[in-house]
Amino acid sequence: MEQVDVVLHPNRPPGVEAFLRALPGITLHSAGSEQEVMQALDAGAQVLATFVWRDAFLRPSLRWIAGMGAGIEQYPLRELAARDVVLTTAAGVHAGCVAEHAFALLLALTRRVGESVRNMIGQQWQALPGEELAGKKLAIVGLGRIGEEVAKRAQNWGLRIIGVKRDPTRYHGCVTEVRGPDQLAAVCEWADIVLLCAPAAPERRCLIGEAELQCLGAGWIVNVGRGSLIDENALVHALTAGRLRGAGLDVTAVEPLPAGSPLWRLPQVVITAHNAGDSPGYGPRWGAIFERNLAAFTGDGDWINRVTVAAGDAP
Amino acid sequence: MEQVDVVLHPNRPPGVEAFLRALPGITLHSAGSEQEVMQALDAGAQVLATFVWRDAFLRPSLRWIAGMGAGIEQYPLRELAARDVVLTTAAGVHAGCVAEHAFALLLALTRRVGESVRNMIGQQWQALPGEELAGKKLAIVGLGRIGEEVAKRAQNWGLRIIGVKRDPTRYHGCVTEVRGPDQLAAVCEWADIVLLCAPAAPERRCLIGEAELQCLGAGWIVNVGRGSLIDENALVHALTAGRLRGAGLDVTAVEPLPAGSPLWRLPQVVITAHNAGDSPGYGPRWGAIFERNLAAFTGDGDWINRVTVAAGDAP
Repeated sequence: MEQVDVVLHPNRPPGVEAFLRALPGITLHSAGSEQEVMQALDAGAQVLATFVWRDAFLRPSLRWIAGMGAGIEQYPLRELAARDVVLTTAAGVHAGCVAEHAFALLLALTRRVGESVRNMIGQQWQALPGEELAGKKLAIVGLGRIGEEVAKRAQNWGLRIIGVKRDPTRYHGCVTEVRGPDQLAAVCEWADIVLLCAPAAPERRCLIGEAELQCLGAGWIVNVGRGSLIDENALVHALTAGRLRGAGLDVTAVEPLPAGSPLWRLPQVVITAHNAGDSPGYGPRWGAIFERNLAAFTGDGDWINRVTVAAGDAP
Repeated sequence: MEQVDVVLHPNRPPGVEAFLRALPGITLHSAGSEQEVMQALDAGAQVLATFVWRDAFLRPSLRWIAGMGAGIEQYPLRELAARDVVLTTAAGVHAGCVAEHAFALLLALTRRVGESVRNMIGQQWQALPGEELAGKKLAIVGLGRIGEEVAKRAQNWGLRIIGVKRDPTRYHGCVTEVRGPDQLAAVCEWADIVLLCAPAAPERRCLIGEAELQCLGAGWIVNVGRGSLIDENALVHALTAGRLRGAGLDVTAVEPLPAGSPLWRLPQVVITAHNAGDSPGYGPRWGAIFERNLAAFTGDGDWINRVTVAAGDAP
């Protein structure tokens, strides 16, 4: 079998490079910079394994983008379709891990772990009475694989749960009450906690704005979806006004979060740097998808996690 | 009915004072200092509601100590028995809350929340790939009410669990594999995570020492039990030597943790100030126990959570 030339973007989750190095049938170009990505593509590489998309990567040789993230909002879907470039994603690879991270952020807020760590720096022993999740009302916005993993883990925690999903009639998971996006404000009014794990989409830009935060009131918000889901100015305002009790953010509107953003300084905010899905399990699980798709690429079997663009569906 | 004089210690969990203020049948002395506690006892108060014990509180008028913590290691049990002073505890009041706190500390370690908060202070956006609990081996040391609540919440998290209990034959909860304390080293060898929620006892002093930490190796340790359960010098050594991956501590050998302890500075350590059980639910739940026991104190009904000292049982 002919070797397939694969370029690996420098920004890679744990274990991916090790997996690809050990995989037979490919010649790996492990790029140290985006410049090297483009050089390898210009030298004829057909496959790009990447977490980050740049339009400059759309070189003539490119035939398959093996995405390392779950989202597709960064890709020029129509353009890829027009050029017959296959796009596959890592959807599902990190769902369990992101769900754990969502709990880590939520519990950091309710048990005041962020403030406690700030106290550690001043060697200050100060009891910070927290809150209990048991009895609280949790809204899970986005009931894809990540939302479902969150709901599964929440089963024995005494939480009441409502899920929000684009099409509630297409849901078949463990959440017993699911509403459509048109009821988001009412769900925020009901909730103590709003947990965002929806993918980005133009119609979901600033899904959580001033009105929704007003409805949530003295609650907590956690975002492991995409930064664009929240109106960040409204979020900062709700926090500094003392209404919202806390925010746990793995994603922000602009990443890296710009220096000088008030979010860095607010004690009731916990920020992680878009690493909710990163774990040593990432490489092997993503690799299993890549391996099946490598076979499909060489004509053997079906693609999995392939993104297909219906007419009018692409941004 | 005659009013009962109750003294409340200044160090009180959330909601306790509000509960007692609203309770009929008592005259509340809300002490602002331990000096005031003793003054109220000398003035004839028979009941002391307290989280903290001092031998100086053992005044002639004292008839009932309504403990606000779960542990009894601080009380002079024989002396109380000899003087017919009743001791009741808050056992069970905060079990669910402490279990949530244990998860908060554990996930702060595996998802590197502490390090992320330290990065926030320098406005540093740095991906810190974490670990997943799913597939990991969790040892719960102490299967009382807190340990059971931890195990219950862990049911859907893909963890393998072994519990350690003084007498495994007396266990009837949701953990399927329970060992006696004589197998602690083997359990540490097996485990990725050791979670301590046992009460303090002379025979459990430094239960986790150099040998047990060596067995645990590159794992994590969480302590929501008592600081005396861990040999803190051995803990610091295991952390600074780079063997142990992290420690989440709500309790320390000496509280407050002394200034200058290396634990304050280690990035892979998360410390909270003995507030795992504090939540707004504390007052009403503790109050329900207090109210029943107040009736028992005035001769109506049975005591609950009363500590009885069998001969030879007390320290």
